[in-house]
Amino acid sequence: MSVSVVGRHEGGLRFRMEQDGHTFMLDGAREFGGVDAGPRPKNLLLSSLIGCTGMDVASILKKMKVRDYKLEITADGKYNDEHPVHFVDIHLTFSFHGTDLPRKKVDHAVELSQEKYCGVTYMLGKAADLTYSVEYHEEQDES
Amino acid sequence: MSVSVVGRHEGGLRFRMEQDGHTFMLDGAREFGGVDAGPRPKNLLLSSLIGCTGMDVASILKKMKVRDYKLEITADGKYNDEHPVHFVDIHLTFSFHGTDLPRKKVDHAVELSQEKYCGVTYMLGKAADLTYSVEYHEEQDES
Repeated sequence: MSVSVVGRHEGGLRFRMEQDGHTFMLDGAREFGGVDAGPRPKNLLLSSLIGCTGMDVASILKKMKVRDYKLEITADGKYNDEHPVHFVDIHLTFSFHGTDLPRKKVDHAVELSQEKYCGVTYMLGKAADLTYSVEYHEEQDES
Repeated sequence: MSVSVVGRHEGGLRFRMEQDGHTFMLDGAREFGGVDAGPRPKNLLLSSLIGCTGMDVASILKKMKVRDYKLEITADGKYNDEHPVHFVDIHLTFSFHGTDLPRKKVDHAVELSQEKYCGVTYMLGKAADLTYSVEYHEEQDES
């Protein structure tokens, strides 16, 4: 399968992207000559990673008939100091909120994404040290 | 330098991202269970790549005092067929439009980004075969 993405320079560091029928801006930070008209392109790697593994996990949990959970994923990335500046360490934290969460199934869903399905994890893991953890925040059952 | 990005699951395959103080949605295609509320996370790697190298090139050309050009960057990515589904080939096309463009300087700016500065090129190039080309579209000088 092939995909094509276009970015058009709109002056300064601003690029207007066209991807999957959606349009959005990318821009640099003010201290680097941008005007912050959109998010940073390099940090977008972390958004790509969260979305990719998050959609895997949501799909797998649906197949496992696990419902009534809330999921927040944080990606903490650490850059090196030399050119080319890139992520050397990335840690993903999967935070699940819910009541009586079936932890074994949830752990397995995350593991399947991280070890088998997530192509962004695979690609970024070739260049950075990528780790993950799963947190549970059990809410009181009000019944 | 460290950076943190958060994604919150909003049901289905939808994730609301918070990155660099900007908020945007990622979603799956309808044929894969999404509702297309935002772009695909995996294809976002190509947007990241275009923005990263594009901002490099715009910055370098500014330092070289090259002005009055238009730049459009296309990333064509080819996925493999097996898990983890990821890009195996990526080609970047830098299309410059203008009059009497200083091609040597422009070529050099692209080369500096691709060979030295662009961290996304570096990272994705560890997992995919990444190539690039530069095209010139000279416009008639109307003076």
